[in-house]
Amino acid sequence: MKVRRSDRLIDMTRYLLERPHTLIPLTFFSNRYESAKSSISEDLSIVKRTFFNRGTGILETVPGAAGGVRYMPMIKQDEAEAFIAEMAQRLSENDRLLPGGYVYLSDLLGRPEVLRQVGRLIANQYVGKEVTAVMTVATKGIPIAQSVAMYLNVPFVIVRRDSKITEGSTVSVNYVSGSSARIEKMELSKRSLPENSKVLIVDDFMKGGGTVNGMKSLIEEFDSEMVGISVFAESDFEGNRMVDDYTSILKVDKVDIENKTLSVSYGNYLTKNADRLA
Amino acid sequence: MKVRRSDRLIDMTRYLLERPHTLIPLTFFSNRYESAKSSISEDLSIVKRTFFNRGTGILETVPGAAGGVRYMPMIKQDEAEAFIAEMAQRLSENDRLLPGGYVYLSDLLGRPEVLRQVGRLIANQYVGKEVTAVMTVATKGIPIAQSVAMYLNVPFVIVRRDSKITEGSTVSVNYVSGSSARIEKMELSKRSLPENSKVLIVDDFMKGGGTVNGMKSLIEEFDSEMVGISVFAESDFEGNRMVDDYTSILKVDKVDIENKTLSVSYGNYLTKNADRLA
Repeated sequence: MKVRRSDRLIDMTRYLLERPHTLIPLTFFSNRYESAKSSISEDLSIVKRTFFNRGTGILETVPGAAGGVRYMPMIKQDEAEAFIAEMAQRLSENDRLLPGGYVYLSDLLGRPEVLRQVGRLIANQYVGKEVTAVMTVATKGIPIAQSVAMYLNVPFVIVRRDSKITEGSTVSVNYVSGSSARIEKMELSKRSLPENSKVLIVDDFMKGGGTVNGMKSLIEEFDSEMVGISVFAESDFEGNRMVDDYTSILKVDKVDIENKTLSVSYGNYLTKNADRLA
Repeated sequence: MKVRRSDRLIDMTRYLLERPHTLIPLTFFSNRYESAKSSISEDLSIVKRTFFNRGTGILETVPGAAGGVRYMPMIKQDEAEAFIAEMAQRLSENDRLLPGGYVYLSDLLGRPEVLRQVGRLIANQYVGKEVTAVMTVATKGIPIAQSVAMYLNVPFVIVRRDSKITEGSTVSVNYVSGSSARIEKMELSKRSLPENSKVLIVDDFMKGGGTVNGMKSLIEEFDSEMVGISVFAESDFEGNRMVDDYTSILKVDKVDIENKTLSVSYGNYLTKNADRLA
């Protein structure tokens, strides 16, 4: 049965949103809705216009026999800024300060709507670049990795600091924990990352960068390549940070443990992505 | 500027999909698209029809001044079955068998498209029931909890077996690990779960049910109520399982460690949800 345009547009929108960065041939939609390719083409140009106008993302058309359309999630400058401003305010709440100068983030990073925007922001930076896997370290980086992976539509892998018996053979590396200058160990299941992967590292919080540096070593052990580092928040680190090329959404500037106050500002995300955000 | 129907339908679809279980007033859409409420009503009835026909979910209309529409993700019987069949086949791969009779799941539970369907399946069971939080235990349950939380649009909380210094005060309980009959400890950050929460427990794998039982005790400690237990896979447990009312998507029936073979069948999900799946 031929499907009406309005129904096609609704179902097509859902179908595309669930499959970012995936090339979908026009014939697929044409069969799905028993409609002519020319009608599907028109539909897609309407979807493309709306996605663009509303800042949902780019619908890329790939011409030719092997062609089709590909949806790439994006975020607009004003939406990105509004979200970062809101997060900076939420993070500045004084009761987030924990002993040792840590900041309580678990409530925010357990909320679907926050994770969605964090995922969109980070994924937005890698549109047009090849990323085949997202990597993080357990436990708190996982929700961010999963959300970024959803928007990039690639698998994510979880590095562990403790040995679990249910992962099979692993590869491990030692790394220097930046904040404490201790030697620690992290490991990744052998079968979780294929050779020649292009890996994006994400984490919730970066102090000295030691953990991120450990993940960089692990990526080398898997004969793979790191394509970027993105964290939700970085702290104002005194000393030599081990990682220099990264983006952060937020920056925890000042932590006054005695008076239990902290101040949070924007990370370098907006500056580093000035040309990407329209 | 008034927005055309086709553009409204596309943007409305995206907006609704990103906010499941949330009541959205008609005036919101009417303002967003500078269109009459009557036109918005017509739009919504088209969205409703398409979502229903394609098995995307139910668009519920709440009448009255405080009314609006609410999107509830669902899954159709045939789509649920096809997914479970595919997973059963993937899980039966002999090279998933790890020492100790464990099954390697991390590749599947690190793939966005798998997590999306697992989340839809589990969330589908709680449409119309009150759930205010999803709970799991670190590490492997996290991706499932996050995906279910996305579809239910509620926060998720992570119980830990190890003490982390960055979570603030915690409440801990002891529990009996079913598979080894050891006494263990798990804990949850005090501020992560408010009193009187309605909690859905999810996990990746259940053997004796000890871990799930521990989470039940924790929920009581938080003066909250458990509303259900859903796991991705259960094993064929010999002995007295500590938990009886749960749903499982898959069941690992037989593990032959000597010959390195395993057999996986459907869990009780389809049976338990026969009346929910259309």
